[in-house]
Amino acid sequence: MRILGIDPGLAIVGWGVIEYQNAKVLPVAYGSIRTPKDTPTEDRLSMIYDGMQQLIERYHPDEMSIEELFFTNNITTGIRVAEARGICLLAAKQANLPLQEYTPMQIKQAVVGYGKAEKMQVIAMVTSLLGLKEPPKPDDTADALAIAICHAHSGASRLAPYFNKRL
Amino acid sequence: MRILGIDPGLAIVGWGVIEYQNAKVLPVAYGSIRTPKDTPTEDRLSMIYDGMQQLIERYHPDEMSIEELFFTNNITTGIRVAEARGICLLAAKQANLPLQEYTPMQIKQAVVGYGKAEKMQVIAMVTSLLGLKEPPKPDDTADALAIAICHAHSGASRLAPYFNKRL
Repeated sequence: MRILGIDPGLAIVGWGVIEYQNAKVLPVAYGSIRTPKDTPTEDRLSMIYDGMQQLIERYHPDEMSIEELFFTNNITTGIRVAEARGICLLAAKQANLPLQEYTPMQIKQAVVGYGKAEKMQVIAMVTSLLGLKEPPKPDDTADALAIAICHAHSGASRLAPYFNKRL
Repeated sequence: MRILGIDPGLAIVGWGVIEYQNAKVLPVAYGSIRTPKDTPTEDRLSMIYDGMQQLIERYHPDEMSIEELFFTNNITTGIRVAEARGICLLAAKQANLPLQEYTPMQIKQAVVGYGKAEKMQVIAMVTSLLGLKEPPKPDDTADALAIAICHAHSGASRLAPYFNKRL
């Protein structure tokens, strides 16, 4: 199964495509969609929409996973992230991609085994699990791969219910 | 000039189309895009996207105006509204509609002449200014018409700078 993980944002959308085979995760491609500052929001959203469509066309994922939003810090930034996230959801729907959302805690638990893991631990585990030579940059890309890995493991949990219990 | 005003939301997107001619506002059409509860968010966003495209195709507005978001009450609801709002911005951009955002206070000032006006005052002024027999329903539709009227008056302010000073 090929999974597209998305870490949404207005300035940077992190993305990562992985293959999940025989209970192993393998990297396919990863990167980020970036939009220029000092550009009208609607232009940036349109770039994200086009970028998402290109990603889906190019890598043909079977499913998509994306982070749920929780605003605790900057609400104004949060609004912009949510607008960008809506665009990512729309692109998935239009491509008929099954979609699953995960909380930051679920993602950390699935990747590190600890729901309150530090960002650096998540990045280190992503790098290790995917056998990468160095940590993916920027962090948004590493996060997107973590979200894809989380979905792979949760998918496995449908076959092996005990996995879920361990989370 | 024909203006499309949008009051964004996930459950209801209020919309209103007005003509602005000779310093007068005239109603063209108004209504709401509604999406069913208990439906995946991405499906609801896709309905909003399709609805926006149909509106723009049908009424050929020259410009679009939309409310800026401020979250003071329910942050979770706010996230959903922002996602829907992103879709409305995308639809405007894809149709090359010039877009202007207004704060709730600007809208109230432009329609009622008082930035802290009550919702009922705004609805009453919209009904009166557009010569409608009864207040537009739901409130989201009345708000969308207020946003369109606000843009008409602000557009006038480009020709008559003193109007702006009175706001």
